[in-house]
Amino acid sequence: MAGVATGLANLIAPQLQAVDELFARELVSDLPHVNQLVTHVAKFRGKMLRPMLVLLAGLAAGEEENPLNHDHVTIATVVEMVHMATLVHDDILDGAEIRRRGATINHLHGNEAAVLLGDYLISHAYHLCSSLESQAASRMIAHTTNVVCEGELTQNFNRRNWKLDEKTYYLIIYRKTAALTEACTRLGAMQSTERQPWIDALALYGKQIGMAFQIQDDILDICGQQKTVGKSLGTDIEKGKLTLPMIHFLKHAAPQHRELLIGLLESDEHDRIERVRQLISPSDSIAYARETAQRLVNEAIHALRILPKTEAREALIEAAHYVTARDK
Amino acid sequence: MAGVATGLANLIAPQLQAVDELFARELVSDLPHVNQLVTHVAKFRGKMLRPMLVLLAGLAAGEEENPLNHDHVTIATVVEMVHMATLVHDDILDGAEIRRRGATINHLHGNEAAVLLGDYLISHAYHLCSSLESQAASRMIAHTTNVVCEGELTQNFNRRNWKLDEKTYYLIIYRKTAALTEACTRLGAMQSTERQPWIDALALYGKQIGMAFQIQDDILDICGQQKTVGKSLGTDIEKGKLTLPMIHFLKHAAPQHRELLIGLLESDEHDRIERVRQLISPSDSIAYARETAQRLVNEAIHALRILPKTEAREALIEAAHYVTARDK
Repeated sequence: MAGVATGLANLIAPQLQAVDELFARELVSDLPHVNQLVTHVAKFRGKMLRPMLVLLAGLAAGEEENPLNHDHVTIATVVEMVHMATLVHDDILDGAEIRRRGATINHLHGNEAAVLLGDYLISHAYHLCSSLESQAASRMIAHTTNVVCEGELTQNFNRRNWKLDEKTYYLIIYRKTAALTEACTRLGAMQSTERQPWIDALALYGKQIGMAFQIQDDILDICGQQKTVGKSLGTDIEKGKLTLPMIHFLKHAAPQHRELLIGLLESDEHDRIERVRQLISPSDSIAYARETAQRLVNEAIHALRILPKTEAREALIEAAHYVTARDK
Repeated sequence: MAGVATGLANLIAPQLQAVDELFARELVSDLPHVNQLVTHVAKFRGKMLRPMLVLLAGLAAGEEENPLNHDHVTIATVVEMVHMATLVHDDILDGAEIRRRGATINHLHGNEAAVLLGDYLISHAYHLCSSLESQAASRMIAHTTNVVCEGELTQNFNRRNWKLDEKTYYLIIYRKTAALTEACTRLGAMQSTERQPWIDALALYGKQIGMAFQIQDDILDICGQQKTVGKSLGTDIEKGKLTLPMIHFLKHAAPQHRELLIGLLESDEHDRIERVRQLISPSDSIAYARETAQRLVNEAIHALRILPKTEAREALIEAAHYVTARDK
């Protein structure tokens, strides 16, 4: 979240620093070659969106002056590790070569190392989780990763399914992305308050911006500039994963355009990805996806209205706007 | 453990049945295609070695008449899920096509589905773990999976390292295999007793038979009959993973034989795996590996001497003998 990081991060700077330290401390191994892989993967960390959601939700729901405690930091570190693990395993699934301007683990060290490094990250996430006071938080994290895996499996199952509908698309992106952001804000809030309406409001906020975030990612996969985004683009097209703009296009574009898109998705021509991007980028389908993401952002912000007006609430509103405004 | 299952399993039949039920109940999804993958992977379950170790250790360390409780069953199910997850991910690493006489997940549904299904299993293992009364058991399981990942990463890092020494080999097999069997017996015992010497004795037993089990697996990869073993053989050779017989051979065989082995390991001839097997099978190096495994089994059995003479202790002794006697 580089664009908004300064303003947001000031509020939670010491805790974000603590997350960084705990992340490094938890992952250190007595084996040098393991540390080398971990150091490489740590470079992929950029936005810190999920830890920020935990911490800002904890702050926004707090009723004392300093509501953030060590459990907030632990949970924030756990969700970042879970997220890193999914990135590493996603890169295998996507066959991606570039992630945050660096070579991906699978490209550099092979699929084997990427599978194992993802496992190492997820194992340490649960290990850290089991140091929490509350078994309930551990259980919610593990339940969330169950759901994330289901989302990924459903997405994989529907590869090259050109009839994928919006409803199934939303189910997939809820499970693979928004379930975790929802857990971030819910858990962050739960560590600070017992007021269920506040917890539910922050959970809804987390869910809706997770959905919006994924739609924006899917838009960038088609319209983004690889130089700006800093990761391989067009991977959805390459892997036959229909996203919202493509689903809309296949339903609403001129018949010749629809046929052209399916032809390109099914072809193995070297320039097919670029041609799909050129076909969809200027279409109404991108506008439709943008509007959908914006609506979700508005719903996220609307959910926060019952919370006290605090700097933390303002920061969450700012973060929600950033989700759809970002170009990387 | 089909060979000895009848005798051993009688002692813990109701609990093994409960493990089966909990395994199925925990993994069920509201998504049919997820259940289909889970059903397929459930067919790989065979020996149930790890759940048996938890339950028999719990029984052997028990001071009451019925020492086995629900936590024993939960832990036994968790370790089986962890084991299944490592099998699914190992099959990606090994490029294996056959597992327990069925096609492996990666062969049938691609590497993507195998990565995700392994993640799904491990996530559910931790989810189930977080239902335990004791956070300490969760933490020990997560610590163990950290170590297992390190073992796998070290093995992967040392692929095609023809200078791998015995010390590093033992470090690898301890971490990737014996750490989990050690955790099985330690956790099983800890649920039944607070007598530290008994817990430590059973943990040592679990560790040593885990080491012996892996050495026997490595012997079978070279000497076994695929029809009997029921999984792809020669994968260690194919992937350039040196095992105890190969390490011994490279140190002690006649110089021409050593050169021949390295030549075959580095070649890409279609029959190189069979030729390596034919070269090492009749050698002293197999005998050396067998003796090493037998010594570990003896140490495992020796550790049990401080426990009361019970049927459970007898069953553990029988299980230890089976580890090196098995041909599959």
